[in-house]
Amino acid sequence: MSYSFGKNFKVTLFGQSHSEEIGIVIEGISAGYKINKDLIRKNLERRRPGKNKFSTARKEDDDFKIVSGEVEGITCGAPLCALIENKDQRSKDYDYLKDRPRPSHADYPAYVKFKGFNDIRGGGQFSGRMTAPIVIAGSIAEDLLLNRGIKIYSRIKSIGQASDIELDLKEIKEEKFSILKNEDFPVFEDSAREKMQEEILRAKEDGDSIGGIVETFILNMPKGIGEPFFDSLESVISHAVFSVPGIRGIEFGSGFEAAKMHGSSHNDEYYYENGEVKTRINNHGGIIGGLSSGMPIIFRTAVKPTSSIAKTQNTISLKDKKNVNLKIIGRHDPSIVPRALVAIEMITALAILDLVMEGEG
Amino acid sequence: MSYSFGKNFKVTLFGQSHSEEIGIVIEGISAGYKINKDLIRKNLERRRPGKNKFSTARKEDDDFKIVSGEVEGITCGAPLCALIENKDQRSKDYDYLKDRPRPSHADYPAYVKFKGFNDIRGGGQFSGRMTAPIVIAGSIAEDLLLNRGIKIYSRIKSIGQASDIELDLKEIKEEKFSILKNEDFPVFEDSAREKMQEEILRAKEDGDSIGGIVETFILNMPKGIGEPFFDSLESVISHAVFSVPGIRGIEFGSGFEAAKMHGSSHNDEYYYENGEVKTRINNHGGIIGGLSSGMPIIFRTAVKPTSSIAKTQNTISLKDKKNVNLKIIGRHDPSIVPRALVAIEMITALAILDLVMEGEG
Amino acid sequence: MSYSFGKNFKVTLFGQSHSEEIGIVIEGISAGYKINKDLIRKNLERRRPGKNKFSTARKEDDDFKIVSGEVEGITCGAPLCALIENKDQRSKDYDYLKDRPRPSHADYPAYVKFKGFNDIRGGGQFSGRMTAPIVIAGSIAEDLLLNRGIKIYSRIKSIGQASDIELDLKEIKEEKFSILKNEDFPVFEDSAREKMQEEILRAKEDGDSIGGIVETFILNMPKGIGEPFFDSLESVISHAVFSVPGIRGIEFGSGFEAAKMHGSSHNDEYYYENGEVKTRINNHGGIIGGLSSGMPIIFRTAVKPTSSIAKTQNTISLKDKKNVNLKIIGRHDPSIVPRALVAIEMITALAILDLVMEGEG
Amino acid sequence: MSYSFGKNFKVTLFGQSHSEEIGIVIEGISAGYKINKDLIRKNLERRRPGKNKFSTARKEDDDFKIVSGEVEGITCGAPLCALIENKDQRSKDYDYLKDRPRPSHADYPAYVKFKGFNDIRGGGQFSGRMTAPIVIAGSIAEDLLLNRGIKIYSRIKSIGQASDIELDLKEIKEEKFSILKNEDFPVFEDSAREKMQEEILRAKEDGDSIGGIVETFILNMPKGIGEPFFDSLESVISHAVFSVPGIRGIEFGSGFEAAKMHGSSHNDEYYYENGEVKTRINNHGGIIGGLSSGMPIIFRTAVKPTSSIAKTQNTISLKDKKNVNLKIIGRHDPSIVPRALVAIEMITALAILDLVMEGEG
Repeated sequence: MSYSFGKNFKVTLFGQSHSEEIGIVIEGISAGYKINKDLIRKNLERRRPGKNKFSTARKEDDDFKIVSGEVEGITCGAPLCALIENKDQRSKDYDYLKDRPRPSHADYPAYVKFKGFNDIRGGGQFSGRMTAPIVIAGSIAEDLLLNRGIKIYSRIKSIGQASDIELDLKEIKEEKFSILKNEDFPVFEDSAREKMQEEILRAKEDGDSIGGIVETFILNMPKGIGEPFFDSLESVISHAVFSVPGIRGIEFGSGFEAAKMHGSSHNDEYYYENGEVKTRINNHGGIIGGLSSGMPIIFRTAVKPTSSIAKTQNTISLKDKKNVNLKIIGRHDPSIVPRALVAIEMITALAILDLVMEGEG
Repeated sequence: MSYSFGKNFKVTLFGQSHSEEIGIVIEGISAGYKINKDLIRKNLERRRPGKNKFSTARKEDDDFKIVSGEVEGITCGAPLCALIENKDQRSKDYDYLKDRPRPSHADYPAYVKFKGFNDIRGGGQFSGRMTAPIVIAGSIAEDLLLNRGIKIYSRIKSIGQASDIELDLKEIKEEKFSILKNEDFPVFEDSAREKMQEEILRAKEDGDSIGGIVETFILNMPKGIGEPFFDSLESVISHAVFSVPGIRGIEFGSGFEAAKMHGSSHNDEYYYENGEVKTRINNHGGIIGGLSSGMPIIFRTAVKPTSSIAKTQNTISLKDKKNVNLKIIGRHDPSIVPRALVAIEMITALAILDLVMEGEG
Repeated sequence: MSYSFGKNFKVTLFGQSHSEEIGIVIEGISAGYKINKDLIRKNLERRRPGKNKFSTARKEDDDFKIVSGEVEGITCGAPLCALIENKDQRSKDYDYLKDRPRPSHADYPAYVKFKGFNDIRGGGQFSGRMTAPIVIAGSIAEDLLLNRGIKIYSRIKSIGQASDIELDLKEIKEEKFSILKNEDFPVFEDSAREKMQEEILRAKEDGDSIGGIVETFILNMPKGIGEPFFDSLESVISHAVFSVPGIRGIEFGSGFEAAKMHGSSHNDEYYYENGEVKTRINNHGGIIGGLSSGMPIIFRTAVKPTSSIAKTQNTISLKDKKNVNLKIIGRHDPSIVPRALVAIEMITALAILDLVMEGEG
Repeated sequence: MSYSFGKNFKVTLFGQSHSEEIGIVIEGISAGYKINKDLIRKNLERRRPGKNKFSTARKEDDDFKIVSGEVEGITCGAPLCALIENKDQRSKDYDYLKDRPRPSHADYPAYVKFKGFNDIRGGGQFSGRMTAPIVIAGSIAEDLLLNRGIKIYSRIKSIGQASDIELDLKEIKEEKFSILKNEDFPVFEDSAREKMQEEILRAKEDGDSIGGIVETFILNMPKGIGEPFFDSLESVISHAVFSVPGIRGIEFGSGFEAAKMHGSSHNDEYYYENGEVKTRINNHGGIIGGLSSGMPIIFRTAVKPTSSIAKTQNTISLKDKKNVNLKIIGRHDPSIVPRALVAIEMITALAILDLVMEGEG
């Protein structure tokens, strides 16, 4: 149990929100690969806060450098280490947070786990900022998957009560998806985007926050990837995705709806189409028995409302052992959903590449 | 990626539905522990098919033996291996299944993955029968958790449209839960049980099957167990649970509801109660930032309707590369929910013990 | 730290000398491989005690059965479990050994580690008998290596003061080696064999035991297998080999002689021979920088004299906390070298296959 | 198979001789530990080249910084990352080495493994320079072991033909050993040191190099640490030690001498001394059955002569596929033994701490 993930494409994460550097080490990247730094930059930009009124006003400079594992941009077979410097983060006073754990933040269990020695500044290693190095590794994974024809897309399925359209299986085509990568707020229907953004702005005005659902699609997945026990595709994907801060649930294909269905309507019947084995519907979300079926992998992730809100809240004073109030200062994302989407996509790329490489072994 | 799970209490599963033996090896069990064989038997009995009209008519004799790792019932520090013999399973003809993959069964992706050499008899290593050895290891884990005061309970939350009552946080007390362990069909409200069983019987009469939701509670979890990346409590639990055949989704605490909520109502405020830190509500489901908070851990698992149904279905002939019909013979659980519940509980015990041991290290 | 070894071809060992069964689980064996049971039988026979006057008089029946992972002798992709039943081992009284640890046996540290609960019967999980399941897995690995053209041979290099001839690099040819597999006492020179066997018989007559050296050769190893840190070829091979009971040292190529040499005579200069890159000498033993060079891998393993001897020895009574005498009853190998050789060869096959599969991934 | 080592105190190494940074990530270090930076500096200084005429004239500035995992010098529970910047290493021309692999260097197998994309500058990730970050992690491990009373010492046992005195078991006392840590050239007898240094200087004058043996002692090791299969203490220590570049062999306790001995003289008889269980001799080197016995752990490591020598050597041109000459330019250690000693000690500290933490779990 560690800060590492993967077996064939293994990443090890380090850093805290305000440590000198945050970074990630990648083992298992083969020699001779030209690192797609444009893709890394593009995905970091997608994740970056402070871009618009739907996200926190804090500016981060996510300039990364790769300090090992390459010679002039080409991997050399040694582990790749990427660093992002944390700038100007030292001066603030976080002592009050050490005493007054923020509701629904990791402060209190971290205080117990680390016996009070945890780095409270900016949330320490629990900070959403830790997903930035994951985006670097995930972008490399995404690029290596693209080289194999495998593509991962995500959209915002809903924010609060506002939802994007339902997709029919037939509509899951690459053409339709490619635009999602270029949107700050990736949805299929413009009117849905407007309603979702209204939900966010309303929450923001109230000093509040709001949750939502991200839906992820993996196209051109090779068949037969995964294991029945204990490394089912769902096991490995969910393991990865629940690392993203703020996730409350995940469902594949029919998901929780399956609980209400009968087998006769839930079962996905096979048929041949142009010599290819397909299913007419995709309740199995591209995964049966823990293995990929060749149909698109589809899963949805529930993202909770941002824990940091402007309203005064009740909490405790650990020092005085009594109940107190807390008002969190600073500006925060009224909804983490758009940025969580990128982290989910990137961490999924890590999981999928690792499994695909396993299957190639 | 393997048939192993856990790092401190590590299990390795082997066998297929119709192999000579199925079994599990446990590493990491300390010497001097008196194996609670009664608890193993009780949990195997809870999982056993053929008990009543809500489950398959197939009879299994789940007699297990422990062939290593103990001396006269006391562990000796060597790996423990438990075996269950598969009897009289050889004679059937499964060749037609090799050609005609059953809808929503692992047959087809397994065929691809194993290049046609997979053991098709009874579903091979994808069979729900593989959860029997997991129940053995899980029972030992459950017993070792009980020795630490940690208890895991589950109930059937819903079958089809029929649901058990919602539980208030204040009602989550051990007294209320203990009865669940003695029920074949564990729910809190008798009238709910009746409605659920009606749903199952109706599906059965129709030659159909039905899904449902299992809700699991972990009480007296020590605080601070888990990691932010990549081994969050949710990551490890979901990794384990998605090994159980037929799971489509998992959600913790507020789960998918969180996606519709505002932070001000979702946040769990702390307070002191008799010197203990608690939260007034438990939307976080006992887990914040990947770590246990000390509040009860609560998660729900969506179980799909049994894939084997009596109705004739469409599928393909792999040999002839054309579309054909398939009628699955034999009797099957009209709903796997009651038996999946036991598997979920047991595999959760494995995950939790492994993490708790990690925390003790 | 566990009873498992390997990552791509992973084995998990279980059992004790007198447990009901001993066995091994293999994960990572691909589907469609026809298990070479003849090779398993042959290697088990090579390891078997009681064959002649140079080994213990104890008879073991090493009949194995494969209880999962295959269908009619062909692997199906599920983990393979092999079992060997322990027969008629229950009746003896081992209580005196629990109190009086045998010199240079694991009894005492095992007593401490397992708080007195260790299985003392026949040495428990520390018994040389545990190498029998390793021979089963190792034979499968050997066969899978043979399919790739990679061959592992061993000879007894010395027993006590008696040594086999030194081999010139030019003599390392497959023709010369193949006879070693068919010898109970594999050496190159008959006169050396005689002298070694004299050493053993003399020790036996004295109620004593004697050590020796095993030399192992790996031919046709693909180039570039291994890692610089931390999984050098030497690291992984030595890790495996030191699992065999009674090993005191290992050296590769020039080994300890290198400590006395100058670089100018130790360095292995490259040259082309028929388009192949070779070295004129092989001080590097086929491994440079942790990687295979393509030259034969050569290493030597020092095996200690059997710890069980007929002479009365000094030890302690743990109960009485005083110094006492001990006379070990029963018959034992006067030298474990010939049987250790098989275990070394088989465990090396596991290590090499795992690395080769890694290189193929 | 990776650049990671350890399970409870896990390190991941990255960098190449001339990459922008080299470094190491440590997972598993508990919160609240005050990092002993003085010990890190002292051990880096012990390893540092360019100190005197017995080592290379190349100067390295091994200034390290810890960029994560701590707050004001106290660990916070997040992974610790330590970096060492590589300065002014870019300008040299290494292209000729890419074509002409140096004898007994990793150049050729690395070329094969990485398909020509390996970083040839300064030996890439095969460079002895990679042991500098290991010294950082090893120093932290050493300090955490010291907190438990466990101490690791090493001496140069021999250089070429010159040897230090043999130590009697009774002389293995901490007082005697403490001076070794403060010596650039740690031996027990001054006259032996002189002879060894003469051997080195003579080799240096000849444009040659020379090998030697390092002997390592671990005092106050807790009893019962290790496993019989596959993680014997010898397995884990040798796995670690063979990561140090230039190691050709390792032996524990009696080592290769055991191969010539009889059981009656090799066996280590137990006795009570002041209520403590001890052995009169220590042929087992503190390890029996893979477990620590409580006696001092003793092992010796054979270090080959430096591969880089000033003499002209034969090699090949990979481009021209013909035999050519090579003269290696630059200055190099005439013997790597004194610096390898530090790396061996530090990597042993990693292995021992990992096992001891396992035993505490």
